Amino acid sequence: MEKMRIILASKSPRRREFLERLGIDFEIIPAENPEDMTAFKNIKKLSKSLGEQKAQEVFDETQGNRIVIGSDSMVYVKGKLYGKPKSEEEGRQMLKSLSGNWHKVLTSLCVIIEKNGEKKVYSKVSVIKVKFMKLTDSMINAYLATGDYKDKAGSYGVQSISSKFIESVNGDYAAIVGLPFCELYKILNAEGIVE
Amino acid sequence: MEKMRIILASKSPRRREFLERLGIDFEIIPAENPEDMTAFKNIKKLSKSLGEQKAQEVFDETQGNRIVIGSDSMVYVKGKLYGKPKSEEEGRQMLKSLSGNWHKVLTSLCVIIEKNGEKKVYSKVSVIKVKFMKLTDSMINAYLATGDYKDKAGSYGVQSISSKFIESVNGDYAAIVGLPFCELYKILNAEGIVE
Repeated sequence: MEKMRIILASKSPRRREFLERLGIDFEIIPAENPEDMTAFKNIKKLSKSLGEQKAQEVFDETQGNRIVIGSDSMVYVKGKLYGKPKSEEEGRQMLKSLSGNWHKVLTSLCVIIEKNGEKKVYSKVSVIKVKFMKLTDSMINAYLATGDYKDKAGSYGVQSISSKFIESVNGDYAAIVGLPFCELYKILNAEGIVE
Repeated sequence: MEKMRIILASKSPRRREFLERLGIDFEIIPAENPEDMTAFKNIKKLSKSLGEQKAQEVFDETQGNRIVIGSDSMVYVKGKLYGKPKSEEEGRQMLKSLSGNWHKVLTSLCVIIEKNGEKKVYSKVSVIKVKFMKLTDSMINAYLATGDYKDKAGSYGVQSISSKFIESVNGDYAAIVGLPFCELYKILNAEGIVE
């Protein structure tokens, strides 16, 4: 039987780490970033659609028996969606919005499987709530100076030094890190890929 | 002025990692494990008392300006308290109890500070809820075979391979890992130790 390729459609080191934990062989073929957030009516639908776009793009570029994993993470606070900050100043504004408040993290998971000519698609969004402590300007400045905020949706990482700011979370923790890990495990287990 | 020593009264690698994230110099002087769980009436009081015992023991062994950090983690499910498993069989029983259910993690933090002859004590317990997916016997066996369950309260780690079993959490995530990190950061920030 033809081997099943497992392809992660993301170059995020945090997503890669989850797959490494499973002890399976996988490839990384990053999708182009389709993150157009200018027009959205429903943030859950937007998140779902971005995960699906990423998985579909890499699925279309590849052939044979394969499992393609796409995911997208966004931060939503006070009616605004935050992706990765484009500058230190944008990072500062995001952190000020998060300070002392609950916000939402939306992380989608889309898994497209082709096995002996048959295709299956799983697609889901996890919505998680995160509470930040009240931050002073000097806390924000000291954190921005570390550079840790770069390349992170919402300008913080839940696993890095900025975890000191997080008072509480409610939902799928792995999805805040960047991937709904338990959901993915259930799919890969059902497909006989991991025990 | 005399230097302030920072002492972690635990040999847990996960607690050490949190302190390393803060970028501060600290020592490790593990407390003896006072974990006597035979007689408890109130699990929050028990958890608080264990954190305090650990911090107090190391505080009593040391002198001068110092901050001693003690912490204790326990898993509580269906009226039973779980510390670290003593055998693979005990690990299996713990995982079977966790399977498909919500459980509680109780993690205490006790910080004792002596500064120029004055003493301050902070003591708090974080109670966090964790939901496991339903586990099959073969999932449990495969996980036990990795050895990852050893030396972990409740026979799982929220950051290790067993994180694939976790559907949801509710509360201070760092406290599930092993230390109420945001609480500790607030104390150390107020003391002028970290920005």
